[in-house]
Amino acid sequence: METAVLKLHCRDMKGIVYNVSRYLFECGANIINAEQHAEAIDNRFFMRVYFDCAGLNRTREEFHTGLARLADEFGMETHLSFSDRRKRMAVMVSKYDHCLYDLLLRHQYGEINADFALIVSNHRTLEPVAETFGVPFFYAPVTAETKDASENKALDLFQAHRVDFIVLARYMQILSETFISRYQHRIINVHHGLLPAFKGARPYHQAYEHGVKIIGATSHYATADLDMGPIIEQQTVRVDHTHSEETLVAMGRDIERNVLSAAVKAHADDRIMVYRRRTIVFR
Amino acid sequence: METAVLKLHCRDMKGIVYNVSRYLFECGANIINAEQHAEAIDNRFFMRVYFDCAGLNRTREEFHTGLARLADEFGMETHLSFSDRRKRMAVMVSKYDHCLYDLLLRHQYGEINADFALIVSNHRTLEPVAETFGVPFFYAPVTAETKDASENKALDLFQAHRVDFIVLARYMQILSETFISRYQHRIINVHHGLLPAFKGARPYHQAYEHGVKIIGATSHYATADLDMGPIIEQQTVRVDHTHSEETLVAMGRDIERNVLSAAVKAHADDRIMVYRRRTIVFR
Amino acid sequence: METAVLKLHCRDMKGIVYNVSRYLFECGANIINAEQHAEAIDNRFFMRVYFDCAGLNRTREEFHTGLARLADEFGMETHLSFSDRRKRMAVMVSKYDHCLYDLLLRHQYGEINADFALIVSNHRTLEPVAETFGVPFFYAPVTAETKDASENKALDLFQAHRVDFIVLARYMQILSETFISRYQHRIINVHHGLLPAFKGARPYHQAYEHGVKIIGATSHYATADLDMGPIIEQQTVRVDHTHSEETLVAMGRDIERNVLSAAVKAHADDRIMVYRRRTIVFR
Amino acid sequence: METAVLKLHCRDMKGIVYNVSRYLFECGANIINAEQHAEAIDNRFFMRVYFDCAGLNRTREEFHTGLARLADEFGMETHLSFSDRRKRMAVMVSKYDHCLYDLLLRHQYGEINADFALIVSNHRTLEPVAETFGVPFFYAPVTAETKDASENKALDLFQAHRVDFIVLARYMQILSETFISRYQHRIINVHHGLLPAFKGARPYHQAYEHGVKIIGATSHYATADLDMGPIIEQQTVRVDHTHSEETLVAMGRDIERNVLSAAVKAHADDRIMVYRRRTIVFR
Repeated sequence: METAVLKLHCRDMKGIVYNVSRYLFECGANIINAEQHAEAIDNRFFMRVYFDCAGLNRTREEFHTGLARLADEFGMETHLSFSDRRKRMAVMVSKYDHCLYDLLLRHQYGEINADFALIVSNHRTLEPVAETFGVPFFYAPVTAETKDASENKALDLFQAHRVDFIVLARYMQILSETFISRYQHRIINVHHGLLPAFKGARPYHQAYEHGVKIIGATSHYATADLDMGPIIEQQTVRVDHTHSEETLVAMGRDIERNVLSAAVKAHADDRIMVYRRRTIVFR
Repeated sequence: METAVLKLHCRDMKGIVYNVSRYLFECGANIINAEQHAEAIDNRFFMRVYFDCAGLNRTREEFHTGLARLADEFGMETHLSFSDRRKRMAVMVSKYDHCLYDLLLRHQYGEINADFALIVSNHRTLEPVAETFGVPFFYAPVTAETKDASENKALDLFQAHRVDFIVLARYMQILSETFISRYQHRIINVHHGLLPAFKGARPYHQAYEHGVKIIGATSHYATADLDMGPIIEQQTVRVDHTHSEETLVAMGRDIERNVLSAAVKAHADDRIMVYRRRTIVFR
Repeated sequence: METAVLKLHCRDMKGIVYNVSRYLFECGANIINAEQHAEAIDNRFFMRVYFDCAGLNRTREEFHTGLARLADEFGMETHLSFSDRRKRMAVMVSKYDHCLYDLLLRHQYGEINADFALIVSNHRTLEPVAETFGVPFFYAPVTAETKDASENKALDLFQAHRVDFIVLARYMQILSETFISRYQHRIINVHHGLLPAFKGARPYHQAYEHGVKIIGATSHYATADLDMGPIIEQQTVRVDHTHSEETLVAMGRDIERNVLSAAVKAHADDRIMVYRRRTIVFR
Repeated sequence: METAVLKLHCRDMKGIVYNVSRYLFECGANIINAEQHAEAIDNRFFMRVYFDCAGLNRTREEFHTGLARLADEFGMETHLSFSDRRKRMAVMVSKYDHCLYDLLLRHQYGEINADFALIVSNHRTLEPVAETFGVPFFYAPVTAETKDASENKALDLFQAHRVDFIVLARYMQILSETFISRYQHRIINVHHGLLPAFKGARPYHQAYEHGVKIIGATSHYATADLDMGPIIEQQTVRVDHTHSEETLVAMGRDIERNVLSAAVKAHADDRIMVYRRRTIVFR
């Protein structure tokens, strides 16, 4: 099936659904699913339309032009993507493999509407995994001196491999603001704590020390403000006094891989919109 | 705010969203939220539109007439309700009070978009609870001989109290097909097991004997086929070998009240549609 | 059944289980259940023994004396309680009733091994609820000037009513250090956030603003350091962008009542031990 | 650390904990953790003791002999295992790899106290996975005619590879009673439904057709009565009308791998006891 996703947001007013659905109808598109959301704050209206575009009665260029006209009229920010142009993702890893395996396997099962462009790592540890799954692997070591060079190498690689978005699959390095700003809301990170609690280093240790009865993991878009980017998905698991810090780490692996994969799937499906510091994740 | 909910389903085809949203736009309605769902089986399209109707530019009668015309054109089944006509519910109970209390308290908190018309019971046990919350209480004892009479009394009461839907809050009697058919998809029951497992009597005993590690509760529309009506909500809780049958019963109370209240809230909001034996519960 | 619970902790060493079980055996007690826990930090051993004491072959005084001797030998801190001396709890509330109702109903169902001694409130709002359930209610208004007097009144009431522990069931006042120190590890509070995140005021507002996908509630022993006492129980619920702040508050009520009741049940059963800032909650 | 696990059950009576802990104390063992459980039905007492045996003051043979004497005295069934004799598992698979990968990765992370002896499959599909992780792989195709021969081949392989227990990681063949009886309570199966609901074939299809709002997966010991063996672990996930049958299958993979791995870990730790048709899973 040839489909497309249109995401838009604008000031809330009468007639948006009508005008959008009219435009799609006139163009020969068939709406499979449409979701809306109104944020009370700022009186903002969000919409995602998933439609069958096999019967489109004009070129995509013409379709884009008409949409731009509509967007102008209503002050909409729009984003359009077609299913025959699959997204390409770069995965950055260090030594932990659980998130990477989860992504590779889910991709094999057809759960992720995106493809692996390449894997970049500051260690050679996971090169064999990349090889097994046939994904190009690049080694970009990071030291205090080579950090800039390493980031630039990665950015060059992303461009050469036509990367659409980046997944930090327990990549243990802090990226520069410059790097992050190049892929705004297109870098997905996983934090091994239930943000905003337990930011920063050793969240399981913090959780253990606090004696919490629930631990969690968070996937979010990376922003310059570490661990504070818009949250995409969170999951939790119950813990108790019998669990050592090491056990928390083990239990955490399960939810880390889950929240990261959920975020990657949602991003690949164009189901996420960001407004202020919150995400709208359509289902 | 003056709002309304339109639910409809019809054969899936191009232009439904467009035509519905156009009609609402022309009538001066403002869509707050619209959800669609397409069932692959039978190629069926479902839609729920929640709209602000304060600016309606015609009478409700005219609005209904125009909608009927649209429904005719597309072969739609439609259902329309206005927020200023709050639904009235009857609650049937026996001796257990946990589901009843949950409904009464949530109603006080403003969580349920419906009002208590009356409580009917085959025991006098919960009469004081009804009194405390100011809900009319009627005693309709049930024996093998009086079952028909008791049901008829209840049906008369429902009519006299203009009841829109019925909640069986752990009502321990089996209702006749005649009774149930009078309120098709308007009788909400709670079963203390995770249907379709553990149908019928003593589900916690069955669960204990099977040594399951998860128990559950189910709310569903009552149908002639006992415990087999369309499921609305289910919840589960983990159990283990340390839990006696009595403990399962206690743990079950928590999820029973939750699933029943969730179903009542969804029904009151006109968020449920039934197709074949499944429910679509919009959010 | 006549039962008792013995809790103890001491430095971990060989023979503790043996010596404790030998003492109980010699005294004619029958162990129903015993749990141990070893904290790696500080090399500390914790034990809870639940035993049938119907066949005790000495007076309770003699039993206590023998136990004290054993405790001395191994440097144990011990705590002993008998089931025929039911604990008495005081509940402090303001205007919210959901936690109070939950406790009252669970008590009626026989889930809580303690009894209501009295309810104290800084508002008269919940007096009718107390009356319905036959629990003495005392009004102790709190203003900046009367805070001390009000606390003293409460403390006097607790003494007069032989209160063993105190439950803050969404009591919206901050208690003084003096007050709290009088009932160390015997005041159970519920916080409507997943501590240590969202301490202090308006946690649901904070959660909404952060755009979290999980909200939670926490029950803990009150300490001088607000919202930082040893955590007893936590629960979470998934939320998404469709939920307004008001909806989070409503969803939160469900988990608040659950975590508070769970903590009260555990405390009443003598299943909780506190060490450093963590709790051990035996099952 | 050199440790051991003693599991036992017997008629409930006074002095069991005392006598067991005395025996261990006399032998120089140090109890790290002991759990008990009393089943009201049949008045049965279960105990699991995890102890440090580095300081054992006699040979293991002597230790066994002494234990047998104690068992005799109290009518105990006992089971003893030492940590320096790691269990060896055989995994049987068909074509699905998600459970296999989960086991292999968790083994690498050190989560499973057992080792892979070999993988046996009726297809060659997963041979490369076995190779990557360095586990011997054997191909034993199954047709109506070769079923017996194939099972015999597997049994021979298990003996040759000194297999302690067998994991059916979505092995799509039904094993004969003869086969199963050879490894009583040592064959762990995963069923992709929440047993006892949705036994047999295509459980996700059944779940979809029933319109359930919760799906689940179950790990259990295989018995002659298909899908009815003692349940070890169950997990669930919420579903709704938007999920197609294919999506249920995908969502199910996550809980299938979780419940199977949890069962394997518990079995490897000697934390499971079976009584009647229920399991006691110590923590």
